[in-house]
Amino acid sequence: MAKEITSRAEDYSEWYIDLVRKAGLADYSAVKGCMVIKPYGYAIWENMRDQLDKRFKETGHVNAYFPLFIPKSLFEAEEKNAEGFAKECAVVTHYRLKTDSENKGKLIVDPEAKLDEELIVRPTSEAIIWNTYKGWIQSYRDLPILINQWANVVRWEMRTRLFLRTAEFLWQEGHTAHATAVEAIEETKKMLDVYAEFVEEWMALPVVKGVKTANERFAGADDTYCIEAMMQDGKALQAGTSHFLGQNFAKAFDVKFLNKNNELEYVWATSWGVSTRLMGALIMAHSDDDGLILPPKLAPHQVVIVPIPKPSEELSVAANDIATKLRAKGIRVKIDNDDQNRPGYKFAEYEKLGIPVRIGIGARDLANQTVEVARRDIKEKQNVSLDGLDSYINNLLHEIQLNIYNRAKEYQQSHITEVDTWEEFLDILNNKGGFVSAHWDGTPETEELIKEETKATIRCIPLNNKQESGKCIRTGNPSSQRVLFARAY
Amino acid sequence: MAKEITSRAEDYSEWYIDLVRKAGLADYSAVKGCMVIKPYGYAIWENMRDQLDKRFKETGHVNAYFPLFIPKSLFEAEEKNAEGFAKECAVVTHYRLKTDSENKGKLIVDPEAKLDEELIVRPTSEAIIWNTYKGWIQSYRDLPILINQWANVVRWEMRTRLFLRTAEFLWQEGHTAHATAVEAIEETKKMLDVYAEFVEEWMALPVVKGVKTANERFAGADDTYCIEAMMQDGKALQAGTSHFLGQNFAKAFDVKFLNKNNELEYVWATSWGVSTRLMGALIMAHSDDDGLILPPKLAPHQVVIVPIPKPSEELSVAANDIATKLRAKGIRVKIDNDDQNRPGYKFAEYEKLGIPVRIGIGARDLANQTVEVARRDIKEKQNVSLDGLDSYINNLLHEIQLNIYNRAKEYQQSHITEVDTWEEFLDILNNKGGFVSAHWDGTPETEELIKEETKATIRCIPLNNKQESGKCIRTGNPSSQRVLFARAY
Repeated sequence: MAKEITSRAEDYSEWYIDLVRKAGLADYSAVKGCMVIKPYGYAIWENMRDQLDKRFKETGHVNAYFPLFIPKSLFEAEEKNAEGFAKECAVVTHYRLKTDSENKGKLIVDPEAKLDEELIVRPTSEAIIWNTYKGWIQSYRDLPILINQWANVVRWEMRTRLFLRTAEFLWQEGHTAHATAVEAIEETKKMLDVYAEFVEEWMALPVVKGVKTANERFAGADDTYCIEAMMQDGKALQAGTSHFLGQNFAKAFDVKFLNKNNELEYVWATSWGVSTRLMGALIMAHSDDDGLILPPKLAPHQVVIVPIPKPSEELSVAANDIATKLRAKGIRVKIDNDDQNRPGYKFAEYEKLGIPVRIGIGARDLANQTVEVARRDIKEKQNVSLDGLDSYINNLLHEIQLNIYNRAKEYQQSHITEVDTWEEFLDILNNKGGFVSAHWDGTPETEELIKEETKATIRCIPLNNKQESGKCIRTGNPSSQRVLFARAY
Repeated sequence: MAKEITSRAEDYSEWYIDLVRKAGLADYSAVKGCMVIKPYGYAIWENMRDQLDKRFKETGHVNAYFPLFIPKSLFEAEEKNAEGFAKECAVVTHYRLKTDSENKGKLIVDPEAKLDEELIVRPTSEAIIWNTYKGWIQSYRDLPILINQWANVVRWEMRTRLFLRTAEFLWQEGHTAHATAVEAIEETKKMLDVYAEFVEEWMALPVVKGVKTANERFAGADDTYCIEAMMQDGKALQAGTSHFLGQNFAKAFDVKFLNKNNELEYVWATSWGVSTRLMGALIMAHSDDDGLILPPKLAPHQVVIVPIPKPSEELSVAANDIATKLRAKGIRVKIDNDDQNRPGYKFAEYEKLGIPVRIGIGARDLANQTVEVARRDIKEKQNVSLDGLDSYINNLLHEIQLNIYNRAKEYQQSHITEVDTWEEFLDILNNKGGFVSAHWDGTPETEELIKEETKATIRCIPLNNKQESGKCIRTGNPSSQRVLFARAY
């Protein structure tokens, strides 16, 4: 508890890292760029994972597991994909260590155990999976294949930030195979909707659904759909992507099927993924200078019961009694049994952990048949009757979930600014932040130029975008629609 | 469906591999020694994982996640552990690929992206975890730490077999830290009990609980406890291990805590794990020449409903109606909707998949208000009234679970043979198989000698072993108890 959490106003970036570490979510490790996900952080991730997994299964997908390693020759088969990831690949070259004859107790890599072919630690699994699908697909009867994998992946990063950008991260990657382009595109969009619904309803985080420009596309995709979220510092965060891969991987790995007309065709593909990066989005979107603010649906503990000033036999009986009633409603409750620290200290701790509701019970309250209920989101307290407390808390949790969402929605809406001139563009970007909705001439060159000059990228072309003729803010060339620019994580 | 499953009598080992592949559980991959876990196999593993995870949480453990990579200098810190795993380590030496200027479209490892320190792909995580715990533990108040991790690990294997021995496998590894040896030993034994109970009650597989000899101990442990199962071919399979690590890792990573008397002490440790190897045990223990036999508690589908001769409107309505009632009892039901294949073919398919109960419904049966219920375990069929079918099936699933367990138990019991001479020992080992209970003089030399001569190892010294004086079967030297020998997977 040495150092407090830096305030957002002072240094947003420090605030974030302090929060992640002080709330026990994650920490740096002895391995450059890799993190340790601590129990409290992992518990939130488990809740997210279980919810997503449920939705994947409800939409007809099954889980499987493919190898961690990809032989170099397979990795390079789909050229754009290989090129896109080549610069950040961890490479296994040897399979054995031996004792160092010159340093007792030390080991060296055994030069005689060099692999004939190097193995790439997967940065994404299209290559190994499409090489496998080749053996599984002969006719249209074998399609669709709707598989998801929960796994760790490695992308070597020079500058890392806990959850947001780490060399190793956890994610899920869906990889589906279809008989037609139409079906594959439908799948791509369906999974984008699954992501958007999860992020909005469970993470309480509004998103913009859109499609990426060619520059920002996944390496090897024909189209990349995305959901983009807005953080409190006005920077955007890509929360999930769903790719229509066309026949690129089928061609690279020669995966053909006999269609209903008995003709050989290449298979159509999609892939889609979200990762532990979502943890970063969750933390940054809602939290404040006192610590985490967690949406009740994802909070490991939704309610903490604190005996005041400290546990006693009478108060513990009452706490257990309340907990039993709340648990019967499916509410996740923690009872504070610590008799070392003072209530003020505990309150600050539970605020830091973002537990949505705190129930304080003292002897005097009990005599009045009431408890003190404190909300984390707006930091308001009130006395509530014990009678019907379970229903009250249940409703309150729903209200908090909604309030957090509405607050983020309001922030997002007030941070989508339409601009029509380059001056306005720069002004908004530098002074207000958020999404800047502006006309763009549609060329990769202009996009690149704007990125170089301002560090802003096109986050997406929103789905169902209004068609509207205008002039590109940078070149003045004609444009048929606005796109969303932002600086991004 | 080209090749049928080899029979057990013909070639047990081929039977196993055929079964794993034909039932869609797993397959070899393009990466030497690594497997693809296919959806049906993964669904069984998910059921196992969820059950184990529940038990870990009920016994006070939380999940976390530590890095895939271990810097070489950390890896070698605990010398015995390092020595034990050095020969089978995948080593990352580079972090980038670049385009091969001599071969268009090909990539080569960028020699300029060589790591200063090699990274070991974790074969087990004691080193990285104890290096992390060092930062988490100051006083007795920080103890115990009760953490589990679900992860992939890599141990380079030259000869691999699906699920039983693969270069990469999935597992869980518990890593706990304690203030006293007594508490750590208690934890070690508790987790062995958790494993034994899960394997017996859910996998329907009886085990012997025991402790390993020094030779067979986990590298870096003071004591290794294990559960040993018996396969149908008379070979043993180690199904889970729980290690008392003493203060070995605390000393290697300098992890000390201030005890209640304000003295600095090294922390006591345990680790325990089970892996996808359990899938191999599950398959080999129960299945027959027609395919898998799955215990109902772990079967992805517990019941399949097959309209006979094929789906019709009437039969589909009836199938849905039955499924609804069974699902209301929490039974996992699949309805066969395929109208291409004949019933005989389907029956064989579902037998191969090991679905515990098959319900056949035909028009004539329905007129009589009955269905045909077939058990996979003993392959018996009978007509059962639709009235009360849900309760009947529910009871039947329990009966099947118990029957599979009892059958395995009977096999195990009849394959523990006490012998008192070297001739008997060889005779049982070569002709009957199973566990051979025999006196041993307690020396690693004799154990090694017996292993070299017979390929039999000491599987364990059973817990609560009877003390009984006798003579070592190999050397004739005095012995105070019998141990269990067997050839093993």
